[in-house]
Formats: sequence, structure tokens, C-alpha cells
Amino acid sequence: MEKLSFASDYMEGAHPAILKKLVETNMERSAGYGYDKFSESARNKIREACAAPDADVYFLVGGTQTNAVMIDALLRPYQGVIAAKSGHISVHEAGAIEFGGHKVLETEHRDGKISADDIGRILLEYRQDENHEHMVMPGMVYISQPTEYGTLYSLTELKEISRVCRDNHIPLYLDGARLAYALACPENDVTLKDLASLCNAFYIGGTKCGALFGEAVVIPEHDYIPHLFTIIKQHGALLAKGRIAGIQFDTMFTDRLYDNIGKTAIEAADKIRKALADKGYRLAFHSPTNQIFLSLEEHQAKELSEKLELGFWENMDDGHTIMRLATSWATMPEDVDRLIEYL
Amino acid sequence: MEKLSFASDYMEGAHPAILKKLVETNMERSAGYGYDKFSESARNKIREACAAPDADVYFLVGGTQTNAVMIDALLRPYQGVIAAKSGHISVHEAGAIEFGGHKVLETEHRDGKISADDIGRILLEYRQDENHEHMVMPGMVYISQPTEYGTLYSLTELKEISRVCRDNHIPLYLDGARLAYALACPENDVTLKDLASLCNAFYIGGTKCGALFGEAVVIPEHDYIPHLFTIIKQHGALLAKGRIAGIQFDTMFTDRLYDNIGKTAIEAADKIRKALADKGYRLAFHSPTNQIFLSLEEHQAKELSEKLELGFWENMDDGHTIMRLATSWATMPEDVDRLIEYL
Amino acid sequence: MEKLSFASDYMEGAHPAILKKLVETNMERSAGYGYDKFSESARNKIREACAAPDADVYFLVGGTQTNAVMIDALLRPYQGVIAAKSGHISVHEAGAIEFGGHKVLETEHRDGKISADDIGRILLEYRQDENHEHMVMPGMVYISQPTEYGTLYSLTELKEISRVCRDNHIPLYLDGARLAYALACPENDVTLKDLASLCNAFYIGGTKCGALFGEAVVIPEHDYIPHLFTIIKQHGALLAKGRIAGIQFDTMFTDRLYDNIGKTAIEAADKIRKALADKGYRLAFHSPTNQIFLSLEEHQAKELSEKLELGFWENMDDGHTIMRLATSWATMPEDVDRLIEYL
Amino acid sequence: MEKLSFASDYMEGAHPAILKKLVETNMERSAGYGYDKFSESARNKIREACAAPDADVYFLVGGTQTNAVMIDALLRPYQGVIAAKSGHISVHEAGAIEFGGHKVLETEHRDGKISADDIGRILLEYRQDENHEHMVMPGMVYISQPTEYGTLYSLTELKEISRVCRDNHIPLYLDGARLAYALACPENDVTLKDLASLCNAFYIGGTKCGALFGEAVVIPEHDYIPHLFTIIKQHGALLAKGRIAGIQFDTMFTDRLYDNIGKTAIEAADKIRKALADKGYRLAFHSPTNQIFLSLEEHQAKELSEKLELGFWENMDDGHTIMRLATSWATMPEDVDRLIEYL
Repeated sequence: MEKLSFASDYMEGAHPAILKKLVETNMERSAGYGYDKFSESARNKIREACAAPDADVYFLVGGTQTNAVMIDALLRPYQGVIAAKSGHISVHEAGAIEFGGHKVLETEHRDGKISADDIGRILLEYRQDENHEHMVMPGMVYISQPTEYGTLYSLTELKEISRVCRDNHIPLYLDGARLAYALACPENDVTLKDLASLCNAFYIGGTKCGALFGEAVVIPEHDYIPHLFTIIKQHGALLAKGRIAGIQFDTMFTDRLYDNIGKTAIEAADKIRKALADKGYRLAFHSPTNQIFLSLEEHQAKELSEKLELGFWENMDDGHTIMRLATSWATMPEDVDRLIEYL
Repeated sequence: MEKLSFASDYMEGAHPAILKKLVETNMERSAGYGYDKFSESARNKIREACAAPDADVYFLVGGTQTNAVMIDALLRPYQGVIAAKSGHISVHEAGAIEFGGHKVLETEHRDGKISADDIGRILLEYRQDENHEHMVMPGMVYISQPTEYGTLYSLTELKEISRVCRDNHIPLYLDGARLAYALACPENDVTLKDLASLCNAFYIGGTKCGALFGEAVVIPEHDYIPHLFTIIKQHGALLAKGRIAGIQFDTMFTDRLYDNIGKTAIEAADKIRKALADKGYRLAFHSPTNQIFLSLEEHQAKELSEKLELGFWENMDDGHTIMRLATSWATMPEDVDRLIEYL
Repeated sequence: MEKLSFASDYMEGAHPAILKKLVETNMERSAGYGYDKFSESARNKIREACAAPDADVYFLVGGTQTNAVMIDALLRPYQGVIAAKSGHISVHEAGAIEFGGHKVLETEHRDGKISADDIGRILLEYRQDENHEHMVMPGMVYISQPTEYGTLYSLTELKEISRVCRDNHIPLYLDGARLAYALACPENDVTLKDLASLCNAFYIGGTKCGALFGEAVVIPEHDYIPHLFTIIKQHGALLAKGRIAGIQFDTMFTDRLYDNIGKTAIEAADKIRKALADKGYRLAFHSPTNQIFLSLEEHQAKELSEKLELGFWENMDDGHTIMRLATSWATMPEDVDRLIEYL
Repeated sequence: MEKLSFASDYMEGAHPAILKKLVETNMERSAGYGYDKFSESARNKIREACAAPDADVYFLVGGTQTNAVMIDALLRPYQGVIAAKSGHISVHEAGAIEFGGHKVLETEHRDGKISADDIGRILLEYRQDENHEHMVMPGMVYISQPTEYGTLYSLTELKEISRVCRDNHIPLYLDGARLAYALACPENDVTLKDLASLCNAFYIGGTKCGALFGEAVVIPEHDYIPHLFTIIKQHGALLAKGRIAGIQFDTMFTDRLYDNIGKTAIEAADKIRKALADKGYRLAFHSPTNQIFLSLEEHQAKELSEKLELGFWENMDDGHTIMRLATSWATMPEDVDRLIEYL
């Protein structure tokens, strides 16, 4: 019997409804580079979901690419981006931001989150430093929802972050690689409409939320970034058959599929979390989304790994190992039951 | 009735066999980033097709991206790439090569082609220039097969180019965005095996040859470019679900699908070329592949555009307009017949 | 006896008046980075000479550095710079512009000059190209006065170039590495005031006009480039002891020293040009400034090189060799006489 | 009476011996770009002082520039540089390293220093991280001597750092902006010869040690960095009149001038340190070189600033202010006496 796998949320292909639509539309002819009717339809549905009728929407291929393009597009060349030390751009993008010439101004975080106070302090210290002309100017803020630790910003927190950015005239950009899993989370109080009103740009993740690939960039204010099409091309991020991304997002934003994808994963994760609590497992931190971080004794980690495919996260100084369980749109109820039974 | 369209070779989705395979394998779980069995199988089939058992094979998403990554990976930071003035990297990549810090050393071409003599002369002039330490060092050669004009390098020409590169210790890189259409061409005498023995790196195009997206980079000598995986990531070009590209190339290199894709297009193009000749149309230059470049009087161009979707190419100084007809794997015999009838 | 040398205009140290001032002020203490009284005085004198009271003035070290900083500062990251194929940035800066991520859009020239028509045509072609979103956007114009061929733009030509730039909302930048030799030239009709009214930025060359080093960037409109100080630092171009550049320019703009430096060189060059004409020497093109380009038969070139240090320029296809004679602020009248005698 | 100034070590012009030599040699003609006899002589003297007869030696203009050029030259494009969080490249170079595409891998420090253990741990963690292919590869180590806190690496510490670098096949680069003040320090046990045997590259600072400007890069192994000349040019860092730097270093390495410059500063600093100790002032940390960091109560800082020009360093959380006193080659014994008297 195949090992139960909760190692990651992008191990299967795509949600079947997406594949179905790709097959149905396959022989229709369309213009390239996003100038097709599928992409246009997807853009409109996303504008509606975000209550941002003027939004510019672009479809890119992957998360690192999207971050690199957007951060380069939002910053002036001599500026850097404020981000959590644990941010994807800080650690796991192989220097893609620096490749574009920008420093990541890494800041301390609490379970993956930074606060309006952190940002305000960095901006103030920069301005007050008498040598600040010799330093990298903080030019924008990068956050992720959910964070790399599976945690969530509350609406109040996001509003505060947004305010400090606006007061300081720097854009706020949000990485939504796993956004479906935030939106579907019972304790989440931040909607797409909130994001559109609070961020200058954000992306709705496809790759980790049921698409073959693809991330939908939303820029609520039209033409906020002039010539973004060319910037995307310059970064090698322009999809020739833009329709392939368009069809996927058009499908995900039809009949609440994106919501349902999130819901499936969160219900499974919640069920597992409850079982883990019942059995006395210790969680490394409170992450209410589709990722569960277990703090395990060495022997526990070993035993569990024999039965389950888990993601390794970190070795702690106290001898514990943090392992990650991830659910997704593709998680089967029977696998969840088998897991709980095993626990 | 829909207008006949010969505007481009990437207006449909993917070859149905590819979609079929994506659907069949959709729920299988696999590792990300190309470490899946589909990608491994595809790599092996490509190695075999190229008679390059040690080759490193990577799957990237699009052509501009592949060129930007590979040129940056093959050059030292202070070097530039020799290319035809008409080369895709010279004109239509929005400065993606310069974004990586490299100058495109543009050289005159004949119908899209450059020669070993051109390259030799550039290298010699560089070395003999007493100021060459103040200049961009030519560090590699970029060619495309077929070229942007649909023309082909012969095996003899390629061997000469390869020799001048090896003699000067600089790599030869070949852009095969439309390689299927070169390989299937009756007058072509350059095989995949030849490319693997003559180039230091090249790519087998998927996007314009029947895939949803994807380009297969082949580097015949193992580890010729250390840490290419990280370089790909740094450029935002790493596909999380690498399997999606792997499955496509695995399918294209099964049962000679890639060959057949090319053949369908070339047979249609040859039939059209013959009809055009019969009717007295003038071709802008001899392009034996899937792209046909018509040199039209203004009124002809206008008339034809009413009935057909064509690609605009260039206004000539003599008042003629060059229009492009492109066939593809998806070109229907009945459309070809209708076109010929119309002509 | 030492060989007569006319090989270059930067073979000596600095004009003695500059050294004298450096010695006199040596032990005065001052702030770094250009915040010293010497630099402030130099800025004011330059503002006055340019009739540009609001101008921002920065002192950089060398020409390639100044071009790289200013072009990067004037362009958006996805834009390129229009320049003559023969421009210093196109040929002799080792790819410094591309290092900043920008393509040099090289255009044909006439004796080193490009015209308003050339620029207008490039901009129009870009806009009219239906694929222009996939191409590098021309974002500014680079010219040099005198050009790399020692030729001069007339005031009429400059006005036309300036108009086409303003009409198209792109900045005009002028490289004045040898500006003293243009300003002092009898047939020149372009003053510093004209440059300040026609260019968005230009630099007054020090290195090749009598300074130890240094180029004075003039940006007539205050704060036209926000945060240029930081951009200069980011490019590694900020001088810690900014006073050293400030003192030099302060001296050059006192008692018309900069004018006199140019005059000395031009008078010598004119005298040599007249002698060359009398003796029947052929000039490669009409260059009225401090550089004289001789078109020589092979045997002539050889003979001359035995007696004189000349700069090699180019081998022509017709077998002629172009050699360069350069005069400078340091050219001695007796050396000119010896040269003429020799001819 | 002028305020006593101990604010910085680069407030005057240059050591008079340097200016004298510039004046004496001013009218001699020489080749540009470092191909002059003065630079050659300086290179030889530095080779001798370093006991590195094969060393490549280059003269650059400033510290940020030198760091940016050398780090870009030593790293592969996908690599980052390990440095102290307090390192000049981490904080005060306006992102010059990131401008070249590289991440600064910032690490905790103790009074400006990092250890072989720190480096070993970073390299090990990188190798052991199963996602390390998605991360920036540590490709070299940057340290400064003295550090930005005025502290010194001991020979033992440097040997350990060098060993860990060699064991891991990554270069060690040392920033010697204030190297004269380290070399002259009684408790220093690291010589130029040690640096040449332990580092792959380092620079001997001129700007802050008595020159008008200039830093001498020493690369003990000949041709360790091929084409460095072109890399320097590409970075806009090539001095046209290379002789100006050459003459300065030739002078500084004649008759032990560089040693004496250091000695003057250190003797003054030691005298001040002793007086401070006698008066009960608190030092922020032990810095035995030419920079003294005072930890002051607010009122003390205010009083002192009225009489003295000091450099502001940092506000501490405990309400103390750290102020910097710096001595230099130009510090007058009578100013030291006045300062001590005042204390």
C-alpha cells in the first residue's frame, strides 16, 4: 500500500474542473500573451471577486517569478523591500530579488508575521539615520497571507500595515501563494475585497491551490505600474499561450471553485489538528491554515516518517524536529481518516 | 464562417495526445521541481533522441525565459553574446538579456543567418583591437534553427560555426523554439544528434510546436553548467509542478509525436508554397519551414487580409509589405485546401 | 630626445593651477561626500556659467562611471538608450550600461553624429511596431559633444534633437568628456547656457580637460532625478573626499581656466591642421576640435609612427590607416613647431 | 577658535608627501589606465611589502566601489557573500552589492567580528538544508580589518577563518579601508604578509589613510580573477589617469610612509584612550585602532558636542549615546593635548 502523503500541497496535477476546461477549449484559436477571451473573462471575474472594477490583472507562471517581477516593478532601482526574515523572498528564492538589483531588508518576525510597528520603526530609523543617503531606501513592504508559517494576518493588522505604508508613501504587496487556504479558514477575517482595498498589488496563488501553474496578479488601481507588460516580458515571465493561465483562473473563479478548493483543504486540516490535540501532539505554533507544524521528539519524528510522507521543516535547538503536514484541494477524506486512525 | 487563420503557430492549446496524458496522470502524486518520474522519463527519451546519454536536460516555460537563463548561465558577467541583428534576443525579448547584464553583440545576417566567417571576424577584431580590454568580450554565439526568417542552417554551416566556437573556446547555443519544423523539413540535414554533437547547449521548443508551454534545454556534456538548477530558480524560471512540463515532453518524445507535429506543419506549408508559386506570388525569401513570407503589393496585402488572418511582418522601402503565413501541428488539411482555392 | 607625443589628451597630471589649489587647501578640514565649501563654490560657479541657478551639480570621477550612473538614473529599468553606434557607451565602456540592465539602441551615425530625424524615426518605428510591447522602449537619447570623431553638433542640430526629445517626453543627455575643446572651437556655436537649456542632463569633462580626474554632472532642473546621491553611492561612484573634485572644478571655473584650457588645445590643433593641409595630408573627416584624424597610406603611417606617438584609430577597407593626433591643455607650442617642421 | 575635531579620519586632503610627488611628476607623460611607470613601481613595492611577488595589484578609487567590483568578480552570479550584519557592505553601501545581483548573507557579529565557527556553521547549514538548491549559495567571505567597530582580528582568528574558507573552496576577501591603523596598532599581530598568505584578495586602504583617494587591491595569486581589468571598466571603476593613484601608493610605500601614517594616528588614539580611562569615561567596546567609541550619558554627549566635533554612532536602548572619536595621520599632537586638557 502506498504511503500516506501529506508532504506538500502541490503534488498532484490540477483540479479536474481545470483540466476539463482546457480539454474543451483546446482547439479554439486565440491571440497570444493574454490577449485572448479566456484571460479577459478571468480578469473580469477576478475584478468582480475583488470588487476592484478598474484593477489590472496579469497571469504569471510561478511564485518566485511573480515576486521578482512585481518587486522590481514596484521599487525604484535604488530601493529595497521590507520583508520578514522568514519570507519566501528572503530565504527560498535563490536571490531572485537581488538578481533584480534590490536588497531584501529582512526584519524579525513572530511566527512569520511582521507588524505595522516593525515597519514604522524601520522607516523612522531610516529617515533619522544621518547616513541614510548611504543606505538602501526602504521602498515597499512584502508580506504573505498565509505566511510561510501558515499563520494569518487579521484584518486589523492588515489595516494597520496598510496605513503605515500609505502614510509613508510606499506600496504594500502581498504574496498569496496559498491564498485559497487563508480565505477558507474559519478564523480568517480578510476577504479579497479587503486585499484590493488595502494592498497596492497582490497575487492570488494558483500553483499551490489547484492549478497546473499560475498566479494572478491584482493591481487595484489601473495603470499603477506603467508598462508592466514589458516588464513581465523583460523578466522572461510572459506566457506565449496566455490562454492556458487564463482558462485556469477563469475556471477557478467560476462557481466558487477557488473557495471550494480552500475549503476542502481547511476542513481536512482542522480535522487532523483536532485529532492531534486529542492525542497530545505538540504543535510548533498556531497555524490555522492548510499547513500543520508538529514539534516532535526525535523518535516520534522517525516513527511518523516511516508511515507518512511529511515535509521536514527545521531542527530546533532543544532537540525537537519540526515536521510539516500539508493538506490541499486533493486531500482525500479517507486518507485523513487513515491518518487519524494511525495517530 | 470563421476567417481562415494562418497568423501564428501557437493559437491553439496543445496537441490532444498531450492533454490526454495530463488527464490520465493528473491524480498521481509526485515530487516537485522536476524530480518526478515523468520528467525523468522525458529526460531519458530526449537523451536517446539526441544520442547524448550524459546530457543534462531541463524543462523551462518559454523561449525568452530560456534564452535569458541559458545566456546568463553560459557567459561570464563581463561577456556578451554574438547574435544576428534579427535574432529573437536582439529584437523581441524586451531587453531580457541586458536585464541579466549582458550586451547582445548584434551582427549583420543573411535571411536571419550568420556564418562561421562572421563569428571568426568578430572574434579576431576583438582580439586585435588594442582597446579590447575596454570592450565587451564576445563570450558565446547564439543562433536559431529555424531562424526568425524561417531559414535553415545546413549541417555544413553548423559544423563550421561549431568549429570556430570550439577553436575560440566559446560555447555555441542554439534556440530551437520551432525546432520541430526544422527537423521535419525535407531540405533539412541537421538532426538532434548533430545538434548534440555541435552545440554546447540548445533547446527543443515545445510552446510553438504543440505543447501548452515548455522548452527542453539540452546540455550534452554533464555538469557543463554547475548549479544550473539554482540559476533557473534565481531567474524565476523554476516550475513548481515540474511534472507538467515533463509529461508534455515525455508525450512528445513517445511514438515520434514531435516528428509528426513537425511533419503536419511542413506538409501543409509545402502545399501552400507550391500553390503560391503556381499563382505567381512572390516570396520575400526562401524559407522552407513552417513560416512563409509573402512580399505583397499594398492592394494584395489588403485583399488577402480581408479573407485571411495573416501575420504582419515588415513594410519594405519599395512599398511592398511582407506578410507571414504560419502552419502548425494544428493546421487542418481542409483549411489548406480552402486557402489554395482562395488564392 | 624624447619622441614627440600627440597620442592622447590625458597623458599628464593636471593643470598646474589645480595642483596649486590642492596644495594650498590641503590641511583645511571639511565634510565628506561633496558637502564641503569647495564643492559648493564649484557648484555655484558652474550654475552661473550655465545660467542655470537651480541646477543640481554632482562631481563624479570618470566618464564611463558618469554615463553608467546617469543613464541608469534617467531610464526606467525596462528602457534603453538611443546612441550612435560609435558612441562611447556603445563601444568602449565594457558593457557598463548593460551592467545596469539597459540596452544601448545603437543607430547609424555620420562622423559620430546622429540627427533629430534619426531619433524621431526610431521613436516612431517603436510606437508603430505592433510588437513594441515585446521590445526595449527607447527611453532617452545619448549624444556627445564633441563626438568620439571630434565633430560638433551645431546649435541648430542640438535644438532639433532637444525638440524631438521633449515632444516625445524622453530626456536628452550629453557626454561632454572633452567639452572644453568644443567650447573653445571657433566654429562652435553651442554654449554652456545652450546645453543647460537644451539638455536634461550633461557633464562637463574634467579628466580629459586638465583635471587629475572628475566630471561635473549638470542637471538644470532641480530634483529632476530624486535621490541621485544614493544612486551615485549605489554605483560605487561617490567620492569620500568630495572636496578633491570640488577644488578642481572650483579652480577650472575661476578666471576662465576651463576656457583657456580648451583654447590652448584648439589653437595648437588648428595650427597643425593648417600645416597638414599645406603638406597635402588627407584627413579622414572634418573634426574641428582637439582631435585630428589622418587617413594615411601604410608606409606613411609607419614613417610617422617612428617619429611621433600617435593614437591608432582604425584600419580602413581601402588599405588606409586612420591615426589620431590629439592636442590638450598641456601641448607645448615648441612641440607643435617641431611637429610641423617634421611634416 | 575653531572647534577641536575628531569627527572623522578623512577630513583633510592628503599627506603632504603625496601632494609633493604629484606636483613633481605632474608634467611627465604616461600611458593611461594603470599602464604607467608610477603604478608599476607602486605595484612592485606593494608586492614586496606583502611578500607576494606574483600578486596582481589594481588601484581603485573608493571603498564601496572596490567592494562592489571585487565581490562581483569573486562570486559566481548566483552566489552571495557572507558578512557581518555590521559590515560596510551590509549597511552603508546603498545596496551596491545587490546592484551587482548578489545577496549579502548577513550574520551576527561580536563587536564587528565574525568567526570561523560562524562561517563553518553557515556553510554546513546551507549544505544540509534539503532546499539549498532554492537558496543563495554562500560563495565567499567578507571581513574588514579593522572592523567597522575599530576592532581587530588576531592572526589566530584570521588563520581559522582562512582555513574554513579553503576547506570549503570559497575565497576570503578582506576590506582594509583603514588597514594602516590596524597595522600600526601595538596589539595587532597580523602583517601584510599574513594577509597575502591568508586572503584570496584584500585591499590596502588609501582614502582613509592619507591619500586623496585610492584603494590598492591585492590578489596574491596571479590571474586568480581573469579579465579583472575589464570587470573594473564594466563597473565604471577604471581610472583614466591611473598614474594619479599609482603615484599616491608609490609614495605611501616609500620610506615606510604608510606605516608612519598609521603610527601617528594610533599614538594619538592611545594617548586619548588613556586619558579617557583616567577620567572614568566608559568605552562602548574595546577598539584598539584609530576609532574610539564612547558610551555617554545624554548630558555628557551634549556637553562634549559643544566643544568637540565628534561622530554620532548609535543611540542605545539604555539611554546611552555612542559617539566616535577618530584620529588620523593628520591629527596634531597639540589638538590631542587640548582634548585631554578639556576632558
